[in-house]
Amino acid sequence: MPARGDHEQHRRDIVRIAGDLIAEGGLAAATHRRIAEASGASTTVVSHYFHDKRDLVMATYRQVGERVAERLQVAADSPHPLRPTLDALLPLDRQRVRDWRVLFAFLGPAATDVDLTAEERVRLRAARARVRSALAVEVAAGCLPAGTDADAVARGLLAVVLGTGMQALFDPSQWSRRRIDAVVGRALADTGLDHCSG
Amino acid sequence: MPARGDHEQHRRDIVRIAGDLIAEGGLAAATHRRIAEASGASTTVVSHYFHDKRDLVMATYRQVGERVAERLQVAADSPHPLRPTLDALLPLDRQRVRDWRVLFAFLGPAATDVDLTAEERVRLRAARARVRSALAVEVAAGCLPAGTDADAVARGLLAVVLGTGMQALFDPSQWSRRRIDAVVGRALADTGLDHCSG
Repeated sequence: MPARGDHEQHRRDIVRIAGDLIAEGGLAAATHRRIAEASGASTTVVSHYFHDKRDLVMATYRQVGERVAERLQVAADSPHPLRPTLDALLPLDRQRVRDWRVLFAFLGPAATDVDLTAEERVRLRAARARVRSALAVEVAAGCLPAGTDADAVARGLLAVVLGTGMQALFDPSQWSRRRIDAVVGRALADTGLDHCSG
Repeated sequence: MPARGDHEQHRRDIVRIAGDLIAEGGLAAATHRRIAEASGASTTVVSHYFHDKRDLVMATYRQVGERVAERLQVAADSPHPLRPTLDALLPLDRQRVRDWRVLFAFLGPAATDVDLTAEERVRLRAARARVRSALAVEVAAGCLPAGTDADAVARGLLAVVLGTGMQALFDPSQWSRRRIDAVVGRALADTGLDHCSG
């Protein structure tokens, strides 16, 4: 039996490969056989790390959630965290497009599976709390009006980010980086942030 | 064999029942057996109307698309079509929540199935064109500034609507009708529409 650290690392590697397959071909694509092929391992090895398909698929969903949470943490550490927080949630590069595709694969099940609905709700609330905190930092720095209703503005900005990402995912030719930036920039300007973003 | 009109009506009824099952339990719930149970028909009758599961499921997806298109048409016929157009796309009542849930069940497959991706892209573009047209009507009526960049504003408003609906679907207790209205109302006010919405 491998050392604990190795076990965790192998499991993470397999989950990452499963995520790549899901991003490409949906939940049905993450079979033990295809994961084994892509990882150069045997299906027995894959089975060793996961009880069943649901265990593997849930681990993929959690791994993407952790990646998003890490990006949001990096953004929160910025002195001007609002724009970086929104950018952390947008499909602006290959890695974030990949994660959006994985998350989309789960949206159907998440809308009807009680556990997944609860998990998705927690994630959306966490993202909204991050946007709210970033707004509070910008208000404290004098970059947003003191009377900003952080909860209401956070709801609107998160909606813009999610709705833009959703359109961009299905229609990349209509949603260049420049166009995404323009929509998000306009929403930020409406909050009054442009007075202090330089 | 029933008359052509009866055939179409029966098919539509079965598709509606399939949609209700998908809204409740996801794509996996739309089995011939469960549709037969819910419709009081036999599985043979259900099979008579659809070649296979994919045929049935695609018909459900198309039916929801038609329902959304009809709502958008009604909104477009309004003398002040902007707000009604956005409302047509929001999960503001039981019927629209049901349709959002059906559409969410398809988002995963739609992100990875080439035909469904193309279909989803067409729908998103059509919705954006409706918002753009509604903006043009409001500009012509003097209810929005003449210099309004209808394409850019339409992208942003559609993003707000999609992102609000997505949050509301997973977290209804945090997204009352009042809160949804407030987020959309704020986005509309940012366009300058509030000067003429009375």
